[in-house]
Amino acid sequence: MSMRTLNRPRGLWQVLREALPTRHGGLRRCAGGDGREAPEGHVHLIGCGPGDPELLTLRAARLIREAQVVFYDRLIDPAVLALTPRNARRVYVGKRCGDHAVGQSGIERQMIAAARAGRRVVRLKGGDPFIFGRGGEELRACRSAGIACAVVPGVTAALGCAAEAALPLTFRGVARAVTFATAQTDKGAEIDGAFAPMLSAGHTLALYMGRRMLRETAARLLSQGVPCDLPVAVVLDGTTARQRTLKGTLAQLPDTGPAPEGTAGLVLLGRSIAAAEIDVPANA
Amino acid sequence: MSMRTLNRPRGLWQVLREALPTRHGGLRRCAGGDGREAPEGHVHLIGCGPGDPELLTLRAARLIREAQVVFYDRLIDPAVLALTPRNARRVYVGKRCGDHAVGQSGIERQMIAAARAGRRVVRLKGGDPFIFGRGGEELRACRSAGIACAVVPGVTAALGCAAEAALPLTFRGVARAVTFATAQTDKGAEIDGAFAPMLSAGHTLALYMGRRMLRETAARLLSQGVPCDLPVAVVLDGTTARQRTLKGTLAQLPDTGPAPEGTAGLVLLGRSIAAAEIDVPANA
Repeated sequence: MSMRTLNRPRGLWQVLREALPTRHGGLRRCAGGDGREAPEGHVHLIGCGPGDPELLTLRAARLIREAQVVFYDRLIDPAVLALTPRNARRVYVGKRCGDHAVGQSGIERQMIAAARAGRRVVRLKGGDPFIFGRGGEELRACRSAGIACAVVPGVTAALGCAAEAALPLTFRGVARAVTFATAQTDKGAEIDGAFAPMLSAGHTLALYMGRRMLRETAARLLSQGVPCDLPVAVVLDGTTARQRTLKGTLAQLPDTGPAPEGTAGLVLLGRSIAAAEIDVPANA
Repeated sequence: MSMRTLNRPRGLWQVLREALPTRHGGLRRCAGGDGREAPEGHVHLIGCGPGDPELLTLRAARLIREAQVVFYDRLIDPAVLALTPRNARRVYVGKRCGDHAVGQSGIERQMIAAARAGRRVVRLKGGDPFIFGRGGEELRACRSAGIACAVVPGVTAALGCAAEAALPLTFRGVARAVTFATAQTDKGAEIDGAFAPMLSAGHTLALYMGRRMLRETAARLLSQGVPCDLPVAVVLDGTTARQRTLKGTLAQLPDTGPAPEGTAGLVLLGRSIAAAEIDVPANA
């Protein structure tokens, strides 16, 4: 991401400062366990969207520009970090398949300590904090410590990937529900019996972190009676300049082959994702 | 590999980059039914977020400021419309419970006509275009007409309401999936058999437009074996200054009473929405 793109939102930002009221987005001070007044520092858990820095919300951009201490994950774009004030303290707390720079409780301790010292703390997360972002855990930890904490929603990966790949998640008369799920946990594949009835009812399924488990996912769903011609798509590196979309059917899902190391992948399944397609003549 | 690899239309992309002063977020030109070159106008289907204009993305704000013709829905905030250029043509196409200012096919015809006349057309939608926004239908209509059309994702209502109300949608060890669904259609309540197994597996359920059907929704879920103490929340006018959150259990859901006319409501169900709560002493 070049700085060019960031300069434009900066100018835009000045326009918006006049157009929009400055609000602090639902920030609420929580009473501590001992009932004392909470200190003045606070924490914002910020959803930074699916990859492209231009998919930040205006609120996220504003809060990042006002931050004094910044905790950030592995997938946060350098252009987003570049919005932080020059003298802000930046702390990398990324996780990568079991290799955690800092453990979850360590992150929470550090955020709380910084807020207790009176700092404006932001915690930058890919996507939305409440969709597989452990935002709930960090919110709870801050509240338990009596630290004011607010959550700023973001564009979660499924929305970003679907839009960029032009694959609708709901479609009138085709799918009136969509489920966001994880394809795996530490224990392995996690396709339980609840997904097949959803897919059979026409719902759309978006599997986060689904790239590594394509074979297992397809096998389980097929064994549960999901039709082999169900449309599927795999979106790699969604909303970044490297985005690629593979399309096919559930039966073809295992054949998509391994993705390069470090590639983020989202798997979409359901009739709605093919519903917007039209037949284009061969000479088009 | 049997799946098609859909790369971005690179050549076209470069052309558009040079032709337009700024980036147009995934814009792609579609071949018309007769294979002719598409005209220069184009359509952006833009997700404007759940209500608060500060939850616009930077990309949405930029494209709105560059628009020549603007089609907008009922729930679009005046502050968002205020971003449109002074000389842009603004067309209200809102819908309100069966009272449609303009029918769906009329909206599509007008957008296509404006793009065909060479205009930069934006279609402003609440939330995200692909989550109950009929974005798929409008994308398909534009493509069929050979009009270049791109989708800009937005913060959908469930994400916005959950963040502002501090109700996590997923939570490690509690819920590893969340479903966004509609509670009703033209035909009435739409709680089918797929929802109970999901809730029983610990998934979270967000019911859009669920405010009018609380009694029917609760009765159906209880009859399908969902426990009566399942945590529920009703978020009214989410992310606006009027936001209110009612919390309780599935058994209490029918007792929340009628909302004022015109109030938007989202119903959240599942153990994760209560997982971040802590016991606060009475004197806090």
